[in-house]
Amino acid sequence: MSTTITNPLRVGLRQERVIAPQCLVIFGASGDLTHRKLVPALFELYKQRRLPSEFALLGCARRPWSNEIFRQKMAEALGETINENHLAWDQFAAGLFYEPVDLQKPEDLIKLSHRLEEIDRLRATRSNRTFYLSVSPKFYGSGCKALANAGLLSDPKRSRVVIEKPFGRDYASAQSLNQIVQSCGQENQIFRIDHYLGKETVQNILVLRFANTIFEPIWNRNYISSVQITAAETVGVEERANYYESSGALRDMVQNHLTQMLAITTMEPPGRFDPEAIRNEKAKVLLAARLADELEPWNCCIRGQYAPGGTKEAPIAGYRQEPGVDPSSTTETYVAMKLFIDNWRWQGVPFYVRTGKRLAKRLSEVVLTFREAPVHLFDAAGGSPTANQLILRIQPDEGAEWRFEVKSPGSGMRSRPVEMEFSYDESFGEPSDEGYVRLLADAMLSDPTLFTRSDEVEAAWRLYTPLLELIEDSPWQLPIHPYESRTWGPAAADTLLANDGLLWRRP
Amino acid sequence: MSTTITNPLRVGLRQERVIAPQCLVIFGASGDLTHRKLVPALFELYKQRRLPSEFALLGCARRPWSNEIFRQKMAEALGETINENHLAWDQFAAGLFYEPVDLQKPEDLIKLSHRLEEIDRLRATRSNRTFYLSVSPKFYGSGCKALANAGLLSDPKRSRVVIEKPFGRDYASAQSLNQIVQSCGQENQIFRIDHYLGKETVQNILVLRFANTIFEPIWNRNYISSVQITAAETVGVEERANYYESSGALRDMVQNHLTQMLAITTMEPPGRFDPEAIRNEKAKVLLAARLADELEPWNCCIRGQYAPGGTKEAPIAGYRQEPGVDPSSTTETYVAMKLFIDNWRWQGVPFYVRTGKRLAKRLSEVVLTFREAPVHLFDAAGGSPTANQLILRIQPDEGAEWRFEVKSPGSGMRSRPVEMEFSYDESFGEPSDEGYVRLLADAMLSDPTLFTRSDEVEAAWRLYTPLLELIEDSPWQLPIHPYESRTWGPAAADTLLANDGLLWRRP
Repeated sequence: MSTTITNPLRVGLRQERVIAPQCLVIFGASGDLTHRKLVPALFELYKQRRLPSEFALLGCARRPWSNEIFRQKMAEALGETINENHLAWDQFAAGLFYEPVDLQKPEDLIKLSHRLEEIDRLRATRSNRTFYLSVSPKFYGSGCKALANAGLLSDPKRSRVVIEKPFGRDYASAQSLNQIVQSCGQENQIFRIDHYLGKETVQNILVLRFANTIFEPIWNRNYISSVQITAAETVGVEERANYYESSGALRDMVQNHLTQMLAITTMEPPGRFDPEAIRNEKAKVLLAARLADELEPWNCCIRGQYAPGGTKEAPIAGYRQEPGVDPSSTTETYVAMKLFIDNWRWQGVPFYVRTGKRLAKRLSEVVLTFREAPVHLFDAAGGSPTANQLILRIQPDEGAEWRFEVKSPGSGMRSRPVEMEFSYDESFGEPSDEGYVRLLADAMLSDPTLFTRSDEVEAAWRLYTPLLELIEDSPWQLPIHPYESRTWGPAAADTLLANDGLLWRRP
Repeated sequence: MSTTITNPLRVGLRQERVIAPQCLVIFGASGDLTHRKLVPALFELYKQRRLPSEFALLGCARRPWSNEIFRQKMAEALGETINENHLAWDQFAAGLFYEPVDLQKPEDLIKLSHRLEEIDRLRATRSNRTFYLSVSPKFYGSGCKALANAGLLSDPKRSRVVIEKPFGRDYASAQSLNQIVQSCGQENQIFRIDHYLGKETVQNILVLRFANTIFEPIWNRNYISSVQITAAETVGVEERANYYESSGALRDMVQNHLTQMLAITTMEPPGRFDPEAIRNEKAKVLLAARLADELEPWNCCIRGQYAPGGTKEAPIAGYRQEPGVDPSSTTETYVAMKLFIDNWRWQGVPFYVRTGKRLAKRLSEVVLTFREAPVHLFDAAGGSPTANQLILRIQPDEGAEWRFEVKSPGSGMRSRPVEMEFSYDESFGEPSDEGYVRLLADAMLSDPTLFTRSDEVEAAWRLYTPLLELIEDSPWQLPIHPYESRTWGPAAADTLLANDGLLWRRP
């Protein structure tokens, strides 16, 4: 019989996922992310009894709010959820505090230190602190420095910093931000968030690959002919024009979320299930990734921007018509590209990555297309058999799907494609938690597995450097193709695949 | 891009599956199989417009029926089906004829020849004939000889013989029957029927394996740890006690149906999709198969017999209480055994084969169990992850099913087994045809792909020879274990697997 190795050291440890007493400090507590994602995620953790009773949330921002105002604002943001759980909210809210802090003012940091000590006494949080930087990216470096200077990061076991995206805006800026951040604390104190890694379905890619026997043997260039990674949104830029104008789809989605999906899909099996082992493999595969044509990147990247559309009765604004957007903006709201990974597993397999706003459907997925069978023994319904596909549905319809050929009923020996599917919702009876629930808990647990390490971030930026330079230096070489809202993006992106005899999936 | 080889010669040919004008002659036309399976299958072919207008069915048996009586008996047997298709039946029935024939009487064969010539004139069937021997097995040899002696098999392109199971009752008798049969015609005129090969789901095993890329790479000893092949019935011996007493489960089910499922599941890919190429591979793999313990076969085979059971109000007769059964009968109604296949693909993989009457559920399936992942990176819900399984559901719930691990929702990185399934019924909206529809059409098409060739039959008998000899010579070494009706058979069969640390699947 086969022998299976389990690491005896880990068996006990992994049951111990209990969040230690601590104070979570959110900078940017008056902002959008805090009331839309972070506090709801914390309240969810509270309801799941996963927060210790010795817990406090200290909201910090420049506004002169009081504890009461902060609690009230958060209660308003949660709305319905509270009405159903009034008692729970009252108890949870008793652990919510507010302190007006400007991270640029050293005196505010002193005030903050005192406040934290007071909370330690009040809530028995034992000087254990998680600092969440939900502030403008330009303050990530100085924010970390301010915390370090105030001595708040000096104990690597009792302090950590969570940094929101974007981490840098190119390879050089990510490198220099990493240098600053790493001068303030140890790498294992830094939690760079990518909320896609908080998704059950992204984590499930690891489990599918490494807890089963049937996937890994065919998970390579011998059997896979191409991979598509899609993150499609139906919304436009919404209220984020200011940020988005200086970012664009490449920085906003590709460098982080899509690249993380790419890394998880393509990494080698880690030696152990341990944060560094996993992040080593992710960094390693990203270092082997490259644009399909690094010298002439315009051959492997298509940028698009949504044009005005809709009907006369219900017009949809084009990107350039959105409030806050430059009417001649060349920021891309869509990007499609082709990558290769030059290693033993993946050499020669094209990876097609696309993301965009105002597309036909909201969905994220990874589609592995397998080579055709080497010999066609049977007639196929459509002339030749369709290639096998494994579709990993990240959102919203969480699950996975196999497409393969079976015998078409009746005389003869024709084949016909069918689907087999697994749905999280059907199998487990409930949609999975928001990514932030998982990631906030993991940060407070000091578990960096699902956070991006410095070398990963840099490898990801390095990958797209030829494109970023081109956009900077000679943007006409990467023109912006307008595309109709509620379509699957510009025709040029179809040509990118058509050149390889392929089609984008349009679910 | 990958290159795929299609055989240009075959593309046209396979569209041509049109049954040529002919007369189908059924010997044993007054018997059970004719009205229960054969005529319904022919009427189905008629309704599907797959029979040529130049078609006749000539029923032959010893009873002195007329055409009219034969038509009426068949109409009665079809019952409901006719009421819904009255016009179709009238047209179909016009091609039904009857001739009293005793195959042992040479003068009857002369009469038959004349009748066939008359039908050729009447129905334009062009001396093209398919002879179906639905008679007692003891007449297979003499029946073929009688046809040959009457010159009815002399044109190998215009005459063929279909022979029902069982073909022989051991290796020696199968060999000598083959010699007789082959002396009467060419091998490609002989169609040995195994109705399991007529099942869509059995044919689908070939399509699954060879029209897809994802199965074949893991379809071997490197990834598969064991295979179970089950054909379970809930019925008892019914009216077949006379036949069954001299047969038993091993001869009635294992040597033919289960061994065919084994061959289709384990054969190498054929060089071409062509009857001889496929049957070569089936014969080849059966020659490599052997009992797990040929020297002491009692270690790898369990025989059982259903005991009286049920409740006081609804008693179920035991096999020995069935009418026509010897009260001290040692005929097995259940058999389970362990086989190995000594070739590069399968060496060391145990194949567990079982069949029985009065079992808990009516179902036939092939279950491939895969090795465990070499390393357990994640906690599993049940301690260790369940092994991956591919379940090929032959009947009644036709389809296929994957079992594998996914991430269990929530914190941590636990895995949990789920199922993905494909159902013929859901995908194609209708249950598939009865096996006889396919097989009758194929025989009339002179397509022997789904019929058992002489060497296959002999290889299958050879495989079980050590058991058959033991039952003959020292039956106490293969004792009959009584088992309760509506269970999964005797406990000894569980021990057979328990010795290997395994369990039978109990769906």
